[in-house]
Amino acid sequence: MEIDLSRPILARNDALAAGNRARLAAAGVFALDTLASPGAGKTTTILATIDALRERYRIAVIEGDIASRVDADRVKAHGTPAVQINTGGACHLEADMISRALDALALDGLDLVIIENVGNLVCPTEFDLGQDARVVILSVPEGDDKPLKYPGAFAKAEAVLLNKVDTIGFFDFDDEAFVDYVRRLNGHAPIFRMSAKTGEGVAEWAEWLAARIEASRTL
Amino acid sequence: MEIDLSRPILARNDALAAGNRARLAAAGVFALDTLASPGAGKTTTILATIDALRERYRIAVIEGDIASRVDADRVKAHGTPAVQINTGGACHLEADMISRALDALALDGLDLVIIENVGNLVCPTEFDLGQDARVVILSVPEGDDKPLKYPGAFAKAEAVLLNKVDTIGFFDFDDEAFVDYVRRLNGHAPIFRMSAKTGEGVAEWAEWLAARIEASRTL
Repeated sequence: MEIDLSRPILARNDALAAGNRARLAAAGVFALDTLASPGAGKTTTILATIDALRERYRIAVIEGDIASRVDADRVKAHGTPAVQINTGGACHLEADMISRALDALALDGLDLVIIENVGNLVCPTEFDLGQDARVVILSVPEGDDKPLKYPGAFAKAEAVLLNKVDTIGFFDFDDEAFVDYVRRLNGHAPIFRMSAKTGEGVAEWAEWLAARIEASRTL
Repeated sequence: MEIDLSRPILARNDALAAGNRARLAAAGVFALDTLASPGAGKTTTILATIDALRERYRIAVIEGDIASRVDADRVKAHGTPAVQINTGGACHLEADMISRALDALALDGLDLVIIENVGNLVCPTEFDLGQDARVVILSVPEGDDKPLKYPGAFAKAEAVLLNKVDTIGFFDFDDEAFVDYVRRLNGHAPIFRMSAKTGEGVAEWAEWLAARIEASRTL
């Protein structure tokens, strides 16, 4: 006998995510979830995004990792409130973890919470956290074919960030093929080419995010 | 009520893995499982390993991906038999998938089967496939701190391959810190610095693998 527990687990998660979403909306806080492979530059991208938007919004970060607190320490050293979630082995964040992280943040003093999911292009895609928007970050060294191999992450993203474009001369990365692979899965998400390290392209992405936040406020 | 199905699922997987292991041993075939993030260079590393060992061993490859068959096509174009497994969303290979892939290979005409697991440093670590050895591949662009964040993959690896070392001047990668992080988790696994693309360091890794294969035959 096999028992499929995925449906009840996801249904329970979806209910908790709806609760997070209502709580964030009541506090006027926009939540952005970021998905990427290990090493795609999630934390560096988040810090660059904070630098671009810190004069307009009050921002905090929720860091998801299997173990360690190096990312939350980096964010705090940067002067931004951060909560570290250690999943203790789990390959993705779930809505109840976010609920507990929100308990640790002073939501009334915030406009934007950026969530860094566990480095994994597969499992996090199934779990709604209550976010307003979810984006996927791919880095040039990972290769142009990744949308073909990890379609779920790209199909559901509201925006695609191609990071580490400053290294493109160093890798066999076919930008045209990459765009084609993304468009097979996702006809609408804008693709931002950027380097969180050098700052190239960060402003365009940050402006999109700011417009997305403003649009959510007028609903 | 919560039901923990992880134990029975893993117990069933372990039983199937033991069956794979017995079947491979009876056929005199060594099975190597490779774990890595998306884009770490798993397929390129496997092709370079085949080039280094093809005169000594008859080799086939089992490719694990959520979707697509681009990797199996690459391996076949290289002149090596390959079976593609599409997990249809699952974030790791399981022993029953390998059992079916072995059905598709002529084991009596092989010495070595290299398995490319799904690109994911988390979930595959829990699932025994019946392999003789499992190694983890990290690429320089992913960063030196990855053992801290994905300890399971590094703690259980028999060898650690640091790939894309030809790009080390381009990234802030602290080799000394990386070795320290690996050693906190794994006191014994050799660390091979290599570039599957340029061929640098591939011979040393291939010699280790050949010695490991020979050692298994004298048991």
